[in-house]
Amino acid sequence: MSRIVYVNGRYLPYGEAAVHVEDRGYQFSDGVYEVFAIHNARMVYEDPHLDRLERSLGELRMAPPMPRTALKVVLRETIRRNRSQHGLLYLQVTRGVAPRNHAFPEATESSLVVMAQHTPPYDMETVNRGLAVITIPDIRWKRPDIKSLSLLPNVLGKQQAVEAGAFEAWQVDDGGMVTEGTHSNAWIVSEGGELITRDAGKAILDGIIRRALLDMARSEGIRFKERAFSVEEAMAAKEAFLTSSSSFIKPVIRIDGRDIGGGKTGPLTQKLIGLYAEHLETLGPLS
Amino acid sequence: MSRIVYVNGRYLPYGEAAVHVEDRGYQFSDGVYEVFAIHNARMVYEDPHLDRLERSLGELRMAPPMPRTALKVVLRETIRRNRSQHGLLYLQVTRGVAPRNHAFPEATESSLVVMAQHTPPYDMETVNRGLAVITIPDIRWKRPDIKSLSLLPNVLGKQQAVEAGAFEAWQVDDGGMVTEGTHSNAWIVSEGGELITRDAGKAILDGIIRRALLDMARSEGIRFKERAFSVEEAMAAKEAFLTSSSSFIKPVIRIDGRDIGGGKTGPLTQKLIGLYAEHLETLGPLS
Repeated sequence: MSRIVYVNGRYLPYGEAAVHVEDRGYQFSDGVYEVFAIHNARMVYEDPHLDRLERSLGELRMAPPMPRTALKVVLRETIRRNRSQHGLLYLQVTRGVAPRNHAFPEATESSLVVMAQHTPPYDMETVNRGLAVITIPDIRWKRPDIKSLSLLPNVLGKQQAVEAGAFEAWQVDDGGMVTEGTHSNAWIVSEGGELITRDAGKAILDGIIRRALLDMARSEGIRFKERAFSVEEAMAAKEAFLTSSSSFIKPVIRIDGRDIGGGKTGPLTQKLIGLYAEHLETLGPLS
Repeated sequence: MSRIVYVNGRYLPYGEAAVHVEDRGYQFSDGVYEVFAIHNARMVYEDPHLDRLERSLGELRMAPPMPRTALKVVLRETIRRNRSQHGLLYLQVTRGVAPRNHAFPEATESSLVVMAQHTPPYDMETVNRGLAVITIPDIRWKRPDIKSLSLLPNVLGKQQAVEAGAFEAWQVDDGGMVTEGTHSNAWIVSEGGELITRDAGKAILDGIIRRALLDMARSEGIRFKERAFSVEEAMAAKEAFLTSSSSFIKPVIRIDGRDIGGGKTGPLTQKLIGLYAEHLETLGPLS
């Protein structure tokens, strides 16, 4: 598959898409990113993602690479040039190129990379099959609320999951409470039928699908609570699932080898998947 | 200054030294590094650095980019082509280029970048002047013993130091104990004249100069202890200093605005600086 990648002002063939070795993203993970779902050639939740990007940049005092309106043009043009129908749009901003030194450089221009990844469209059958997760200690830095490139612990955690035959690893803080997955938010449905996901403090990344789902629950009258839950509580849950822009909503039917909800996708999870699928169909045309 | 950078098998002019946007170092900080001091065109403590590199790679289950003997040739050739007399040699290894996915890719070749940075030679007068440090919470991930590219918290900490008019920030764990600086190890001399630096567990990076200094202390009969010390203990210390391959030994004469040892470089610090300078002169020729 030939692809076009936007790199600092130019649309380049995939093989030529390169950045300087002293880009601070490469030497210091001094940068942030966003991943947009593309559905029928449209970005899903474009502005919420761009809001969060601006928050991440602000927390790190990093200059936006360009105004939002211009950035939207680049995003659309990358979709167009790649003829993307379904998949992901990956955007990365770093503090730019400067001679290696931990402190912020005096004056650099932020680097911007945008690329598309094709994936099969959202498939209800696969989604409904359900997945396994494992639990691992959360060894990340104390600001996972910033969507930064400091992802090495996430890489190691995901790899652990894969080697255990699981899809994702739920990270557990020092107090035994689940924070989130290595690339997704974690949810359970309690004994009492309440939807539960960790509150969006500094311990987790406030996922875009996470927020969208809370909005849906609100408008559908589904009871939910944003609070920490323990591994034990998850093990005893009626249902469990995970969310992210690349995973949407995926049922979790096994945690550390133990069946959750009888090892089947639960009714509330199924309902939310349906609501999300409906939402996808309401997206406006790519403008 | 025109420079030559080694990038994956080629010696390139600085301006052309680039890596692919999907190099896992750029997207996930999935890589490790080393910084060698160059003194009179020779690497200082070459093998200890390469030992540590191999340890970091092993901890992350990352393949070495080439055997040590070949790597030594690349390091020497980079020094030679840059006519480096004094400065730093920076080496970075990442898990290579692969389509973005947190888990380890099936088969990639590790990326290798080596570059030189010129600096003025070790200058006793500047060194003896002494520096200020501030203390900040240690917000890093739980494996700073691995010399990884996940350096964003270090970047933020160093920037805080610079803005406070200090050279370095000493990071403090949840128990109020100093771990280390953002790019150097932290040392104090206790009331009783004992040299103290944090033990090399998982809370700090085991610095090469740190280890060399402990060896010197051992052979010189200087009393030392590897243990955690609190900010209060550091404030009350007779002397303080920091070490790293780029800083060597630098006296710390102010912590959070308070003078340490009367705001002057202490005698033990001075002695260690002298011993280190002597060691530099004993280095063999670049082979």
